[in-house]
Amino acid sequence: MGISEETRRLLTQASTATLTTQLFKRGLRNTYMQNVHRITPDAPVLVGEAYTLRMIPAREDLDHPDMFRDRTHAQRRAIEECPAGDVLVIDCRKNTSAGTLGDILIARLQARGVAGVVSDGAMRDTPQIAPMSIPVFAGGAAAPASFGAHHPVDTNLPVACGDVAVYPGDVLVGDGEGVVVIPRHLADEVARDAAAQEHLEVWILSEVKAGKSIFGTYPPDDDARARYEASRPQNR
Amino acid sequence: MGISEETRRLLTQASTATLTTQLFKRGLRNTYMQNVHRITPDAPVLVGEAYTLRMIPAREDLDHPDMFRDRTHAQRRAIEECPAGDVLVIDCRKNTSAGTLGDILIARLQARGVAGVVSDGAMRDTPQIAPMSIPVFAGGAAAPASFGAHHPVDTNLPVACGDVAVYPGDVLVGDGEGVVVIPRHLADEVARDAAAQEHLEVWILSEVKAGKSIFGTYPPDDDARARYEASRPQNR
Amino acid sequence: MGISEETRRLLTQASTATLTTQLFKRGLRNTYMQNVHRITPDAPVLVGEAYTLRMIPAREDLDHPDMFRDRTHAQRRAIEECPAGDVLVIDCRKNTSAGTLGDILIARLQARGVAGVVSDGAMRDTPQIAPMSIPVFAGGAAAPASFGAHHPVDTNLPVACGDVAVYPGDVLVGDGEGVVVIPRHLADEVARDAAAQEHLEVWILSEVKAGKSIFGTYPPDDDARARYEASRPQNR
Amino acid sequence: MGISEETRRLLTQASTATLTTQLFKRGLRNTYMQNVHRITPDAPVLVGEAYTLRMIPAREDLDHPDMFRDRTHAQRRAIEECPAGDVLVIDCRKNTSAGTLGDILIARLQARGVAGVVSDGAMRDTPQIAPMSIPVFAGGAAAPASFGAHHPVDTNLPVACGDVAVYPGDVLVGDGEGVVVIPRHLADEVARDAAAQEHLEVWILSEVKAGKSIFGTYPPDDDARARYEASRPQNR
Amino acid sequence: MGISEETRRLLTQASTATLTTQLFKRGLRNTYMQNVHRITPDAPVLVGEAYTLRMIPAREDLDHPDMFRDRTHAQRRAIEECPAGDVLVIDCRKNTSAGTLGDILIARLQARGVAGVVSDGAMRDTPQIAPMSIPVFAGGAAAPASFGAHHPVDTNLPVACGDVAVYPGDVLVGDGEGVVVIPRHLADEVARDAAAQEHLEVWILSEVKAGKSIFGTYPPDDDARARYEASRPQNR
Amino acid sequence: MGISEETRRLLTQASTATLTTQLFKRGLRNTYMQNVHRITPDAPVLVGEAYTLRMIPAREDLDHPDMFRDRTHAQRRAIEECPAGDVLVIDCRKNTSAGTLGDILIARLQARGVAGVVSDGAMRDTPQIAPMSIPVFAGGAAAPASFGAHHPVDTNLPVACGDVAVYPGDVLVGDGEGVVVIPRHLADEVARDAAAQEHLEVWILSEVKAGKSIFGTYPPDDDARARYEASRPQNR
Repeated sequence: MGISEETRRLLTQASTATLTTQLFKRGLRNTYMQNVHRITPDAPVLVGEAYTLRMIPAREDLDHPDMFRDRTHAQRRAIEECPAGDVLVIDCRKNTSAGTLGDILIARLQARGVAGVVSDGAMRDTPQIAPMSIPVFAGGAAAPASFGAHHPVDTNLPVACGDVAVYPGDVLVGDGEGVVVIPRHLADEVARDAAAQEHLEVWILSEVKAGKSIFGTYPPDDDARARYEASRPQNR
Repeated sequence: MGISEETRRLLTQASTATLTTQLFKRGLRNTYMQNVHRITPDAPVLVGEAYTLRMIPAREDLDHPDMFRDRTHAQRRAIEECPAGDVLVIDCRKNTSAGTLGDILIARLQARGVAGVVSDGAMRDTPQIAPMSIPVFAGGAAAPASFGAHHPVDTNLPVACGDVAVYPGDVLVGDGEGVVVIPRHLADEVARDAAAQEHLEVWILSEVKAGKSIFGTYPPDDDARARYEASRPQNR
Repeated sequence: MGISEETRRLLTQASTATLTTQLFKRGLRNTYMQNVHRITPDAPVLVGEAYTLRMIPAREDLDHPDMFRDRTHAQRRAIEECPAGDVLVIDCRKNTSAGTLGDILIARLQARGVAGVVSDGAMRDTPQIAPMSIPVFAGGAAAPASFGAHHPVDTNLPVACGDVAVYPGDVLVGDGEGVVVIPRHLADEVARDAAAQEHLEVWILSEVKAGKSIFGTYPPDDDARARYEASRPQNR
Repeated sequence: MGISEETRRLLTQASTATLTTQLFKRGLRNTYMQNVHRITPDAPVLVGEAYTLRMIPAREDLDHPDMFRDRTHAQRRAIEECPAGDVLVIDCRKNTSAGTLGDILIARLQARGVAGVVSDGAMRDTPQIAPMSIPVFAGGAAAPASFGAHHPVDTNLPVACGDVAVYPGDVLVGDGEGVVVIPRHLADEVARDAAAQEHLEVWILSEVKAGKSIFGTYPPDDDARARYEASRPQNR
Repeated sequence: MGISEETRRLLTQASTATLTTQLFKRGLRNTYMQNVHRITPDAPVLVGEAYTLRMIPAREDLDHPDMFRDRTHAQRRAIEECPAGDVLVIDCRKNTSAGTLGDILIARLQARGVAGVVSDGAMRDTPQIAPMSIPVFAGGAAAPASFGAHHPVDTNLPVACGDVAVYPGDVLVGDGEGVVVIPRHLADEVARDAAAQEHLEVWILSEVKAGKSIFGTYPPDDDARARYEASRPQNR
Repeated sequence: MGISEETRRLLTQASTATLTTQLFKRGLRNTYMQNVHRITPDAPVLVGEAYTLRMIPAREDLDHPDMFRDRTHAQRRAIEECPAGDVLVIDCRKNTSAGTLGDILIARLQARGVAGVVSDGAMRDTPQIAPMSIPVFAGGAAAPASFGAHHPVDTNLPVACGDVAVYPGDVLVGDGEGVVVIPRHLADEVARDAAAQEHLEVWILSEVKAGKSIFGTYPPDDDARARYEASRPQNR
């Protein structure tokens, strides 16, 4: 059973910066993927549960173009089996010397309703991927096909991506800053508290822009917090 | 004798992704330059034969601004001698701490009809270079002049650039994804087969966007290939 | 006492490329920050004197969100104490795994009239910072808050930033290429000579665009220099 | 069914340098682990089939000392289940900031008759491990326990180790130079041909030490090869 | 007031592996210096309180051999002022391109009774330092003198060393595996608990060597712990 | 014409640390090879003039074992042509994934009287090379043969090695700390002044061991220098 519509809605509005703070408060320090960036600048915020694909180094006798004829090939299977609404997360061991996926496979994922793609390897055909509306995050761009560097080995096992642990079902959120991984059982509470934090920070930012010192305002002291509470519509 | 107009035309239309696949099929795995990116986003696709310039580390007693008065200085010579239509390829040992060339030298190359510039070092004056119409690819941007890090030592010898071997006369193609090096003797056949591959992939992409599974379509099975052949104008 | 208006004006018009050349001529080779880039593309050129903040690695018992309530906390103090017109320079040991500052603190610096921010760590809330008009330079983007990686320890001591020494009061100039550090006592003469160099190079560029060879033109020989001098308004 | 005694014997006498050449001749270029070195200088050559353990990044709520009480914990299971005569190969994503195993677990592996340990992460208690007679190869030494960086997730799946693919049952050979991975189905023929190559190279080395030029000797021309064949006992 | 003789004695007998575990249990995860190794193999275990020296990048006009005539020069001052029994900890920003100290300065520290030296930069004259009896830990060896890369700026401020925060007075312990930093206020309890942990682990190791499974033994279950307690002299 | 016997003798007695200081005094800052270490611990100090070999990345159709039958192959030629007494310096672009040379080629160089080998790539057969009496310096150890990563392209051109420029004829000195490159025209004076510096430093070290402060001693003030001069045999 997937995340609720309310949680999905809240996460779409939260920044990855806010989400990492909420996770930090729960003792989770390593939740932001290193060196994984959005390569589809106009795509919406990424929110969805992780469906994983794992790559190990290619071996010349196993990895060549013909292997794609094999319908049990893990990469091809992942493209057709990743559930609509989920995020395909690919563990490439941070090796960006070859493209994990290209424009045709990304187009197929989009056609199937997959919520987005996250890889700590590179993508290929990136000039063609850039204008797509499906959010794609990657460690870089590289023209060579995946089989020169990667062998897809299995799907939906726990993996590493961008130095963060990703368990199948974990909730990924990706924006212009990057990707954060939220353990599945924390998604609802993190979404709720992130929304509250963002609401407060919008108010703090308006105060700061109006000339207030950060002392007493950020973080807010009792007086500032009272003014914030008074400013909220439901409190009027 | 340079590459034919037909080969040049075909290569201009091929993506670097497709070209690496064609080279891979011929046993060449290491043809895509690592960490070399286009810094002139509006420039056309780069196609041309390699004319090389090699840099070694600077030595303080040899490398200083006055050396540019020496007309036998390899960098200055390369600027004036790189043939029109060729690509100036600079081996900077992937050291991006100083700019290899700046806007004046790039402008001179453009005025001389050089097809483009590729360096695995940095460029300087990059804000001025960015809008130019000559394609320039580099490993980064750096304000310091070349003599702080590099000594130009000779021209048109085989070099390394972006971890790829470049022999004088090899054909370079560069697009929004990066740069691929095609051994000179393979340029014609790779250009031809890349065009065929791209034509097929355009058809596959249209099928996938229309909802087809990748199984049977990408790569195409006999049935899909028959439909593809039937769709080609010359076959109607 | 700050730099003069004339020096400030000249530095605003000089490129970082030209400034590094002027510093090189004075024996200073290491003045350009490595891997520090502008993340506010529409902001003006950065010019100002350095006010420094130093970070060491975080320690779990000292670094957590509550510490921001402490008004003696060096990061918070820096935000409120960095003089208007100065540049806040932050030494993050080139660690970009966490954001040094976010949009609220940057907004406060802007409200206080600070000239800009330079960090060799990452910034967070970068999508919100990007459109700001205060120039911000950083080593990257990262969603996690600073306390996960950094402990702010003191202000206005000499620091390292992007592998360059920065002494309080040194003059920083930042443009689309990066950031250069000018020792305070050299600022006036470097500004003056950079302006002269740029004026000459504009003329050289026009010559080169008109088809002149770089031999004799760049660097200019006696004849070229005479033509340049003749072209200058004050010499007519 | 394991490798034959004859293959094991031949591999114990072959150097990893020779084995990589034999694999290269069969089209396998990426068989030598990068940055994995022997930390037990007096231990014998490592030969055995791979039993794998896979690590992903630790997550603070899952990875702490108490988890070792769980007998289904993959790391603890690997220690007790790796078959005698096999090699425990650990995929640590080349992260050497924490120790994968320490002296007690290594001692247990030795007591159980395991042939050796290979990790692309670090080991801890390395001063205590150094004099052991079980061959241990690792990416470095680090005092912190594994749970600070690693979560053991499963055993005997294909993994990456030192940038090489390792499939369960592949044959590993490790000597003072490092570790080579031989695909299981090639072990017999590679062992046999490596022995022949080494025998020839011993003869070549004796020729070279006696003053012969490498031209004609290395590689041997027809004449040299005839002399070599004549020198072999079975040919006399 | 320094650490007690008892704490010093216990720390000398504890391994850095055990100490990091004790610190981890107290929530401190980042206490082991990365890439800092012992370069005096025969020296005793390092134990002492930190006296710090901070380096920033060199600037050509400030850093040259003559500066050593200045008795206020921070590096020279540190050599003469670091208290006997303390450890000189040098923050070199992990830059190992130049030697921080050489054999003469190390000899002076030894003559003054300093307990040891730890730098995340390189040392020079390492062949001469290797046989010394004062424990020296560094990030590498490099022949060039410090002033080519480093400017010593101040002493006894909090610093970074090997990616770990070091506050003056923190207790450093270094053995054949590396260096761990213990916050001053935790030194006594960590020393005591580390001794207890080591005593238990010696017993566990003897059990494991005698053939016991790690299940129930490591970590010990109630039965194993009872046997351990019974084995302790004071319990007989 | 080679360096004089006197210069060779003096350089054999000078440490690389002292030599870099003498070169620094002459304005040469970048003379010490980064990450190039001695892999023959018992070999004598390396002194000799550079004979260079340059490698570029391998290309699969050009680089395979059979190419060694070609007597014009640059690597094989270098082995047979490097003059006795010279040092073979190999530019491998700091790529250590394959072995540049193995034990047979090193043995041939030794038989031919070559003074030593320096590579910023790896060596293979390092366990067999370690006990040799010819000094060998390399960036690491790697079992794969050179043709998997390197193509030898020419000899005795200026090259980069360990980030230092090496011109044919430059004088290399290598000891337990590493390798320094002395421009040919400076070899005599650097050798002479290094000897004087070392003689003084031996005296300073004896003073420091006897309890003297470094203030006034290192560097020596007028009084100390007078005592030093008085201590010299020729002055008695």
